[in-house]
Amino acid sequence: MDKWNLKKRPVCLEKRFEFESYTITRDFLDRLGDYCEKVKRYPDISFGKTYVNITLRPEDDSTEAKITSSEHQFAEEIDRLL
Amino acid sequence: MDKWNLKKRPVCLEKRFEFESYTITRDFLDRLGDYCEKVKRYPDISFGKTYVNITLRPEDDSTEAKITSSEHQFAEEIDRLL
Repeated sequence: MDKWNLKKRPVCLEKRFEFESYTITRDFLDRLGDYCEKVKRYPDISFGKTYVNITLRPEDDSTEAKITSSEHQFAEEIDRLL
Repeated sequence: MDKWNLKKRPVCLEKRFEFESYTITRDFLDRLGDYCEKVKRYPDISFGKTYVNITLRPEDDSTEAKITSSEHQFAEEIDRLL
């Protein structure tokens, strides 16, 4: 499983998922949407026919916010939706 | 109704939609997904809790491609999904 990329300015965890078809992409997006709604966290998501890019920012959105175990755990849960 | 923005390099039509809640955002995304599947066109879409940003590129993806009535019509259909 590929790792999530830790970015700076603004600090975030990012990962791009690639899929074989739009149907598979959309199934993943549906599961992701259900999960986000369940845990009430709404990452920035971009997608096209066969990819989904997810950006996780710290829940604490102050300028000194850091990526913590909370974001890493969220990222792991998203990986499990595959 | 706000207009779509015509961008250059790469040429595309873009529009940002804002919503009052995640539920309304997701309902719009669902209708958009169904419509894209029906017409087999897959724009680049990014979204968060209360916004959706859509980028329409020319169907013809050569470097000299231009936005034509095909993209404007697609954009109008998307506006109707609101």
